Amino acid sequence: MADMANIGFVGLGVMGQNLVMNLNDHGFTVAVYNRTTATTEAFLDGPARGTSVTGARTLVELVAMLARPRKVMLMVKAGAPVFDLVAQLLPLLSAGDIIIDGGNADFQDSMRLAADLEAQGLLYVGCGVSGGEAGARHGPALMPGGSPAAWPQVRGMFQAIAAKLADGTPCCDWVGEGGAGHFVKMVHNGIEYGDMQLIAEAYDLMASLLGLTPDEMSQVFADWNNGPLASYLIEITSAILAFKDADGTPLIERILDTAGQKGTGRLTVAAAMEIGVPLTLIAEALFARQLSAMKDERLAAAAVLSGPEADFPGDRGALVADLGQTLHGAKIISHAQGFMLMRAMSAAHGWQLDFGAIARIWQGGCIIRAALLGHIQAAFSVQPDLVNLLMAPYFQAQLATAQPAWRRVAAHAVAAGVPLPAMLSGLAFYDGYRRGRLPANLLQAQRDYFGSHTYERVDRPRGIFFHTAWSGHGTL
Amino acid sequence: MADMANIGFVGLGVMGQNLVMNLNDHGFTVAVYNRTTATTEAFLDGPARGTSVTGARTLVELVAMLARPRKVMLMVKAGAPVFDLVAQLLPLLSAGDIIIDGGNADFQDSMRLAADLEAQGLLYVGCGVSGGEAGARHGPALMPGGSPAAWPQVRGMFQAIAAKLADGTPCCDWVGEGGAGHFVKMVHNGIEYGDMQLIAEAYDLMASLLGLTPDEMSQVFADWNNGPLASYLIEITSAILAFKDADGTPLIERILDTAGQKGTGRLTVAAAMEIGVPLTLIAEALFARQLSAMKDERLAAAAVLSGPEADFPGDRGALVADLGQTLHGAKIISHAQGFMLMRAMSAAHGWQLDFGAIARIWQGGCIIRAALLGHIQAAFSVQPDLVNLLMAPYFQAQLATAQPAWRRVAAHAVAAGVPLPAMLSGLAFYDGYRRGRLPANLLQAQRDYFGSHTYERVDRPRGIFFHTAWSGHGTL
Repeated sequence: MADMANIGFVGLGVMGQNLVMNLNDHGFTVAVYNRTTATTEAFLDGPARGTSVTGARTLVELVAMLARPRKVMLMVKAGAPVFDLVAQLLPLLSAGDIIIDGGNADFQDSMRLAADLEAQGLLYVGCGVSGGEAGARHGPALMPGGSPAAWPQVRGMFQAIAAKLADGTPCCDWVGEGGAGHFVKMVHNGIEYGDMQLIAEAYDLMASLLGLTPDEMSQVFADWNNGPLASYLIEITSAILAFKDADGTPLIERILDTAGQKGTGRLTVAAAMEIGVPLTLIAEALFARQLSAMKDERLAAAAVLSGPEADFPGDRGALVADLGQTLHGAKIISHAQGFMLMRAMSAAHGWQLDFGAIARIWQGGCIIRAALLGHIQAAFSVQPDLVNLLMAPYFQAQLATAQPAWRRVAAHAVAAGVPLPAMLSGLAFYDGYRRGRLPANLLQAQRDYFGSHTYERVDRPRGIFFHTAWSGHGTL
Repeated sequence: MADMANIGFVGLGVMGQNLVMNLNDHGFTVAVYNRTTATTEAFLDGPARGTSVTGARTLVELVAMLARPRKVMLMVKAGAPVFDLVAQLLPLLSAGDIIIDGGNADFQDSMRLAADLEAQGLLYVGCGVSGGEAGARHGPALMPGGSPAAWPQVRGMFQAIAAKLADGTPCCDWVGEGGAGHFVKMVHNGIEYGDMQLIAEAYDLMASLLGLTPDEMSQVFADWNNGPLASYLIEITSAILAFKDADGTPLIERILDTAGQKGTGRLTVAAAMEIGVPLTLIAEALFARQLSAMKDERLAAAAVLSGPEADFPGDRGALVADLGQTLHGAKIISHAQGFMLMRAMSAAHGWQLDFGAIARIWQGGCIIRAALLGHIQAAFSVQPDLVNLLMAPYFQAQLATAQPAWRRVAAHAVAAGVPLPAMLSGLAFYDGYRRGRLPANLLQAQRDYFGSHTYERVDRPRGIFFHTAWSGHGTL
């Protein structure tokens, strides 16, 4: 049995190949299979030459190469290809064997697979993989979830190949049951949308209201990267703003302002809407990308729609400092909303998400890695049942400090006509969340007026519904 | 054949009964069927006694009572019940007969039904019905869409029973093909979410920042109802704010601030996200309802999260006037976004939506009826291919006038900590839409940096994609 492989891989795209090489580096033996045998052979003759990686020409061969309980990791296109492979693997596997989906599955597919496989005595791991090709090769962030009994079987391998924090902690831990792994990866991407949009708004305000040059802004971001805003995205933004085109012009000024997307932001917002979590900031970030794509319409509108002069007579350095506070405050809101969504979904689906573990995983290997996540991890470590990040003393204090600056930035932006949809949305959320009483009483009165939808009363127990005959002449 | 009924109804809930009575009032003969025969008998012995309405105990009987081409209108619960009934009706109907779905169908079901029925030689009408029970009885807004050949067959009946504008124009016209009818009704409901939230924010600012009493605010809304804001929702808001509880206290103060929803707002935002239309204001309205439902969390947060004193030392009358301008401007944005969504979906699905007709229909019988819709109708009448309402000269001018006030209101609100998520979102959208250049160039640079997603350049033709090796040491 000493020759049996620790794990089998199906799918030798770049992500698959790089994870295999990463496992090999860490002393694990991997058997690989690809639908096109030539790809397998090229991999064995190329990157994997001289390693212990072995190739299989069929799934039957692959499964025969694996130590029990067998672990088969699928690195194929999400959706039908995954379900097809699972159907082919089922007759080849036995009770206790583990199928791992390391692709970009929709978490709802992941939920279905987990249930189906467990019903047949197998174990399932849906694993979010973040960090792109380089991450897969040298240390990704891994978000495994699914059948809890599978975790001890894959933990050693996964934590070995994952990115490591400065203290050696691996950016990989069990996040929860069912479709939790792919769900958490999806929320990661949603938060990434929010972080990126907030940075873009800071850049916009500095460029269009304060007239800072890309080099000056690069320095601002570099400074921010040495404080509470320290993060991968702030770091690369500084590098991007400093980057020069061949003729010495800042390359950023030559890049077209139409942002693409691959759909995970939308899925995150859709999940939030469905379960009733106000994920406002990420939604605005998504919509900002969609608005950016309407380049021709915007050019036409710019010629005819009026606005104020973008003029700032005040202290530019002070506004830049305020902007840093704004970015920090808004980023806290965005993360708080993301964790609200995870908390609601965890409760609804019984995933038992480990929020502290998630905040730890995200501190390395992935796009949203940031100093902030250390504070989030700490907050959940003190209070695992924390209802909302905003309620943690650390974040209460950070927001108390940030908000006067944030309000000044918002006021300048609305006066000057610079669009800060995510920063404004985050502030409105903060001001709404801390309101014991919102004007939704009027909404309920309107709904009762025109549709007899009834309402509850503040002076009566909840769950008792009242209807008023508001007008003498009948409703609409 | 003179005894044959003009139309058959399936489903005698309140909406069905009221539409039947409305048709009867206008001289049409209706045959009715309900799954529970006792309901049919109670209706014939009750509201329909003495009318020409006839009852059927089976679908076979019902179909036999109808003049050809036969028209069967389903007024049953959306979803499976509709599909079940269609399956039962199919063998009883002949080529050219018409099935009308007057329920609250998801427009995607409506699209499927239209295609299925047309493939079988039948005609389909998916009809949005707005105005609630009283509207159904005395004049609803009707939004029929589906098979164009069906329209001449049902037009007379539908326009007869619809609400009428002051000049007699019926609030019913053909809106487009396929699932267009139910889609347009869904967007109506989304716009309703936006209108209601904007009114709630105006109420909140007047109450919590200016300290106006409900009676004073009732007067403000009454005044607004005599100007460009004139609308059903403004009118009932004035009535609601004036309404006193038994002890003389304004009832509004006793109503719990947790808003409900029935899902159409969410479906509208989901459709927008999927097709790439930034429906920001309605999304914020939806999320505001969801935040309102978190009453316990908000009460806990109110005790610990800090904010500024809500203080307004200025001219209260001037701010109220500014607020009216803000409401008007934000409402224009919300409608513009709704029409953007309709335009995108119409193009994607080949519905050929008639935007002017839609704006005319919505001027009576439905919740969002408003003076504004007359101007929208006029804009599309001058320019049927108008890309965006904001580009129409009338709306350009209205926004030019409204925006300084809107910016003042926004600045006061962010400074005072009053949450105006929809008003702020609308302003950010206006400022983004009129920007020829947005900071999405930075997003694209980031995406290229960490994910090699490539970018386009402003100095090269679109469709050519570039990738930069941003850092010497590889991407993440």
